[in-house]
Amino acid sequence: MNVVLLSGGSGKRLWPLSNEVRSKQFLKIFKLSEECGREVSDDAVYESMVQRVYRQIRAVDPEATVTIATSKSQVSALQNQLGQDVRISVEPCRRDTFPAIALAAAFLHDKMGVDGEEAVVVCPVDPCVDEDYFMAIKKLWELAQEGEANIVLMGIDPTYPSEKYGYVMPKTKDPVAEVETFKEKPDLETAKKYVEAGGLWNGGVFGFKLSYVLDRAHELMDFTDYEDLFAKYETLTKISFDYAVVEHEKSIAVMRFAGRWKDLGTWNTLTEAMEERIVGNARLNETCENVHVINELGIPILGMGLKNLVIAASPDGILVSDKEQSSYLKPYVDAMDQKIMFAEKSWGSFRVLDVKPESLTILVTLNPGHGMNYHSHQRREEVWTIISGEGEVILDGVCREVKAGDVICIPAGQRHLARAKTGLQIIEVQLGKDISVTDKIKHELA
Amino acid sequence: MNVVLLSGGSGKRLWPLSNEVRSKQFLKIFKLSEECGREVSDDAVYESMVQRVYRQIRAVDPEATVTIATSKSQVSALQNQLGQDVRISVEPCRRDTFPAIALAAAFLHDKMGVDGEEAVVVCPVDPCVDEDYFMAIKKLWELAQEGEANIVLMGIDPTYPSEKYGYVMPKTKDPVAEVETFKEKPDLETAKKYVEAGGLWNGGVFGFKLSYVLDRAHELMDFTDYEDLFAKYETLTKISFDYAVVEHEKSIAVMRFAGRWKDLGTWNTLTEAMEERIVGNARLNETCENVHVINELGIPILGMGLKNLVIAASPDGILVSDKEQSSYLKPYVDAMDQKIMFAEKSWGSFRVLDVKPESLTILVTLNPGHGMNYHSHQRREEVWTIISGEGEVILDGVCREVKAGDVICIPAGQRHLARAKTGLQIIEVQLGKDISVTDKIKHELA
Repeated sequence: MNVVLLSGGSGKRLWPLSNEVRSKQFLKIFKLSEECGREVSDDAVYESMVQRVYRQIRAVDPEATVTIATSKSQVSALQNQLGQDVRISVEPCRRDTFPAIALAAAFLHDKMGVDGEEAVVVCPVDPCVDEDYFMAIKKLWELAQEGEANIVLMGIDPTYPSEKYGYVMPKTKDPVAEVETFKEKPDLETAKKYVEAGGLWNGGVFGFKLSYVLDRAHELMDFTDYEDLFAKYETLTKISFDYAVVEHEKSIAVMRFAGRWKDLGTWNTLTEAMEERIVGNARLNETCENVHVINELGIPILGMGLKNLVIAASPDGILVSDKEQSSYLKPYVDAMDQKIMFAEKSWGSFRVLDVKPESLTILVTLNPGHGMNYHSHQRREEVWTIISGEGEVILDGVCREVKAGDVICIPAGQRHLARAKTGLQIIEVQLGKDISVTDKIKHELA
Repeated sequence: MNVVLLSGGSGKRLWPLSNEVRSKQFLKIFKLSEECGREVSDDAVYESMVQRVYRQIRAVDPEATVTIATSKSQVSALQNQLGQDVRISVEPCRRDTFPAIALAAAFLHDKMGVDGEEAVVVCPVDPCVDEDYFMAIKKLWELAQEGEANIVLMGIDPTYPSEKYGYVMPKTKDPVAEVETFKEKPDLETAKKYVEAGGLWNGGVFGFKLSYVLDRAHELMDFTDYEDLFAKYETLTKISFDYAVVEHEKSIAVMRFAGRWKDLGTWNTLTEAMEERIVGNARLNETCENVHVINELGIPILGMGLKNLVIAASPDGILVSDKEQSSYLKPYVDAMDQKIMFAEKSWGSFRVLDVKPESLTILVTLNPGHGMNYHSHQRREEVWTIISGEGEVILDGVCREVKAGDVICIPAGQRHLARAKTGLQIIEVQLGKDISVTDKIKHELA
């Protein structure tokens, strides 16, 4: 099958573990169970939503082609978690799901040579599901390939009358049925009526032939091919696939799914899906009830006498919230002057250790075999102290080997990079009056 | 008047803000009100218990002689908070209050030349009180100077039948009365009876003439003078002043005190005394009730929907506790493998930024005009990057001036120190296989 995973969102609702560069799908909070059949080392027993979904798809269909549609800012994290070879349709900026799906379709057709007659299933990257979900996705892909309907959706059998989801009303109770109508997120009373009337939650999954969505895209947007659409991407109107396409389509089928399906959009729902109460260095005394802790800091957390709380700590901040209240997190996080203190990059990661008016101290971790871009800074010097590993640095074209204990002073203007042979860790002290991530000039390596 | 402040305790009950080198009396959690008449800069609006008590004594009696009796490990913090000139009777190790008071008395008599006929008041450094308490202390000192009783105690008018304090039973209801008897910490029912019978809380304050306590000391311990007692200190038996002296004395008076008096031994009582709900970078949403936050980390804390909690965060760890439950903290902290991540020293402070198997990264802050001891390490090298300020370093006897941006590499075995001209901040990376605080050799500066 051919699957496009939509990986979106800046995920402020899961602050402080998610930030502008690390969306919730990258949080490593799911314990890898032994049934996965993978060798698990001590410090790699957790996987993220995106790693889990990627693994589950391959388990169901080892031949599946998976493309991830996402913004530029997530590419490094995806490569870090799924490997350099992961197939990504990069969105130059955020333009909602219709432009994103159109771009991914053009990418598959024009760049990957996928035939217009081949079906594609688009689904969100972040549902918490079991493998039966992806068996259903495969079935849905087959239905789309058969082509009786132009679009095939997944309808989740509701377990309660939820106000959080849109509803799909099918014409019959058959496993696959024509869609009668769509309903927006209802209030509780209306939700009850929808459920009584046989309504299903809209799971945000769309199956169609590639040519179908490309035709719709050409009707609604003026572009020639993938390159052209990519170049124009910033000028496109933000519009969802539902509004742009689904609402205007007569030929839509919905396939029922009754397995585990959870939307992990808030701390409340996310902690429900966690198999362990504690991830990271934390202890809860015996009087704690229904408390979850995720601690990404190097210091211990002690919880005493707590009820129905989530505690989440990262280099970005510390959240202590009643689980119900955690749904109302976003405006408070929006109001914060939030600096990004940690990020996964394609080559490894960085973590801010200390911030001063005229200096910034960072721990840089380069994964074995990886290196940073060749670059220079105009308004800051840097001092690197290698604290572990072996590798090389290039300074204004001159290469030298480095190992733990070496110190490299990089004046402003000097082009530089570091590459890791073994995993390389560097304490980087940035010094200057005007330190900014924007002060970075990339250079070609001669 | 002549006051000896007993500054004790490792303060695990206020983890993570107190640790082995930073007792609760050093926590800066009391907002300096403008009535103090001090100029207050933006980052110095809080004072610690010890600073507050020191200031209150001077306000009541500018001529007061204050001596702090404490262990070696607290000297740096005391000098940091009260200035280099603070008078300290240093205990070589902890031996409970009788040896501590005897040593302080010998210190005053033999080193400071205080006459044996002069009265001294010994009181704990950590009660939360107003200035009227020290007016009472002054009155108590005058009573001790008059010498009608050998010991004068302070009896706190009980506001409720507490199980936490020992009781003093006076013979009469007069403001100053002879003591009938002492009672250990009672259970609730017994406490009620004591209060009904006119009992007072024992405030841990003792007034006496210096010769009185020196005589008791010579009776119970074999020593000649201060130097001798100091040299023998480690061999002394641990015993409290109450057991060793008070219980055997017939001539004891108790002076009533009915003003504000709080023992701030647990988070529960400490937060009651805080004038502000939040100290440091934190926000509580409007659904929080009776929550206190003290945040010494550089990252924000957000609390949502919390009730009756204390949140305390420091480089040592993060506590989230129900206020009642916080009294049971100590065993959990004892069970932790706690590393000291932050300490105030006489010359400034340090904070651990990163810990790796073969490296340790530290932010070192040297106060203006201060310097570290001249020392070397056998099993580690150090890389210093100066991030702010100006000063000088001495390396194997060679002095050089340093400023922000300078990098100093110190191989194992090299003698070194840094001194600050202006406030000097250094990122220090320690590198070696066996990094330990014990790997430090002090040297004389030629």
